[in-house]
Amino acid sequence: MADDNMGSYVEPGEFRRDTNYITTRITADGRDGYAVEPDRYRLVAARACPWANRTLIVRRLLGLEPVLSLGLAGPTHDKLSWTFDLDPGEVDPVLGIHHLRDAYLKRFPDYPRGITVPAIVDISTGEVVTNDYAQMTLDFSTEWTAFHRPGAPDLYPEHLRAEIDELNREVFREVNNGVYRCGFAGSQDAYDAAYTRLFAALDRLSTQRYLVGDTITEADVRLFTTLVRFDPVYHGHFKTNRSKLTEMPVLWAYARDLFQTPGFGDTVDFGQIKEHYYVVHRDVNPTGIIPAGPDLSNWLTPHGREALGGRPFGDGTPPPPPIPSERVPVLA
Amino acid sequence: MADDNMGSYVEPGEFRRDTNYITTRITADGRDGYAVEPDRYRLVAARACPWANRTLIVRRLLGLEPVLSLGLAGPTHDKLSWTFDLDPGEVDPVLGIHHLRDAYLKRFPDYPRGITVPAIVDISTGEVVTNDYAQMTLDFSTEWTAFHRPGAPDLYPEHLRAEIDELNREVFREVNNGVYRCGFAGSQDAYDAAYTRLFAALDRLSTQRYLVGDTITEADVRLFTTLVRFDPVYHGHFKTNRSKLTEMPVLWAYARDLFQTPGFGDTVDFGQIKEHYYVVHRDVNPTGIIPAGPDLSNWLTPHGREALGGRPFGDGTPPPPPIPSERVPVLA
Repeated sequence: MADDNMGSYVEPGEFRRDTNYITTRITADGRDGYAVEPDRYRLVAARACPWANRTLIVRRLLGLEPVLSLGLAGPTHDKLSWTFDLDPGEVDPVLGIHHLRDAYLKRFPDYPRGITVPAIVDISTGEVVTNDYAQMTLDFSTEWTAFHRPGAPDLYPEHLRAEIDELNREVFREVNNGVYRCGFAGSQDAYDAAYTRLFAALDRLSTQRYLVGDTITEADVRLFTTLVRFDPVYHGHFKTNRSKLTEMPVLWAYARDLFQTPGFGDTVDFGQIKEHYYVVHRDVNPTGIIPAGPDLSNWLTPHGREALGGRPFGDGTPPPPPIPSERVPVLA
Repeated sequence: MADDNMGSYVEPGEFRRDTNYITTRITADGRDGYAVEPDRYRLVAARACPWANRTLIVRRLLGLEPVLSLGLAGPTHDKLSWTFDLDPGEVDPVLGIHHLRDAYLKRFPDYPRGITVPAIVDISTGEVVTNDYAQMTLDFSTEWTAFHRPGAPDLYPEHLRAEIDELNREVFREVNNGVYRCGFAGSQDAYDAAYTRLFAALDRLSTQRYLVGDTITEADVRLFTTLVRFDPVYHGHFKTNRSKLTEMPVLWAYARDLFQTPGFGDTVDFGQIKEHYYVVHRDVNPTGIIPAGPDLSNWLTPHGREALGGRPFGDGTPPPPPIPSERVPVLA
């Protein structure tokens, strides 16, 4: 993904995301040296991270679990790296490492950038292949087709790609990254500008059942992962507090509709999400104390969006429940 | 006021308020050397401070403005003292000082405790008389009676004092100070315990129109000043985020009913309130950035509480509008 901030006016104190990733791709034809193959790669994600959450959803929707295994880093990390502290011995059972960083250094001994999730690691060499999260889910849809489950939806239909790409750019700039621009603003002016842009974007988002066409697409996945973190984290921690998601009726129904769709809510671990942000960002939350609220049981309330029509999976079918080792805690 | 924490179990990391104040009283009989007299004293408050807000409300309700003048410290202060930075030259025009601390030191050269508002200063000597906010409003009601306006309500009726006192103790312990116990908790356990106690107390508060009897009393004043700060500050800044005040229908209608009653909402400056907490508490909010939200225009929406009966001012009448020099910004 190119630097989406490029060319735009930057407020003094504005947070700028480093959008340079390892752009190696895993493709059907293997042109970068990494062909799509079953059991060759391990997806490393963290339930806490919104960018990684996209890959968890798309992998579920497309049914890639049997061919692409999953390693999960814990919700918190130190300055160096995400770590596998949820696993027995705090070591990923397949990669045999504690720090995800080791997979980056294995391929690039002087890797100079942040150690991010999601990342895909070539299991036999232990080397990271890519951490380019924006390309990753598109490749799941377009390059891993030979391994899609029967009934997998088309999340990136060819005739809608231009529209999806354009919306994705706006949603990244104004919403996905917009909440970070609020939370990490270095000045009041930068914060005020980011806040205004964020809510202006949320207010103009579509009121149809799905963002593009009449089925779930990649665009919905990308908006969802920010919305699901809005009230438990961004509202307070990042000061995106004009209103809660629950106070924006259309977006709130939209978000619940997706949450209750197999493949979305069943990838969300609110406990890990809250722990990540409130514990890791000591510059924003020096005490590391995690708020007990809000009450999240309302994610399961009726949303009424069926009345808008649409066919979530198009000609496909919902995915089956998550495999037992990948289940998240159920909401009370 | 005695130490309300005394004798109760204290969680490790629990915030404890220093509740030792200067207990000199201004009384009708002048038994502490300070008799109630017109134009002798200056009330020093800050619109930001919930404890000072009580005095602003009671002074308005009882109509003490013509006999007890008001000095207003600005919303922020340094480690030493509240300061008169809103006044021309940053000096209180009557007391002639910049730091409120000077009035404390004038009387007690080695004053060892925090410099707090509200405080009452003897104008001719420049010495602080008292900063005992809990006694102060009761004395407005019971000692300053000779100067109450015609139609002033009885905020502390004799036959209800035991009930009001008991409720005030609970509201102080669980709510007024409870939000601080959440925000200044030094450990996750202390925070969790404070949060549970706070919302349990809010949930059991009365559903009648006023807390005690069928008119406004001192008890309503004390609960109001915390509720009015709940969504703009405590929800995010102090992590009291199970729900917003606007999501607790009975309390939200109760708070709006009071807000829209002359003497309450017209003492509230949301801008100063937000600036105070988010700028002063750098240990909680290192950046000092003030959130732009929430939308507060909903304080003026109909509350429907008239249907519960009750007579806000009993046999009295509402106070007239604030004098021009004491008006707060009006909600959009």
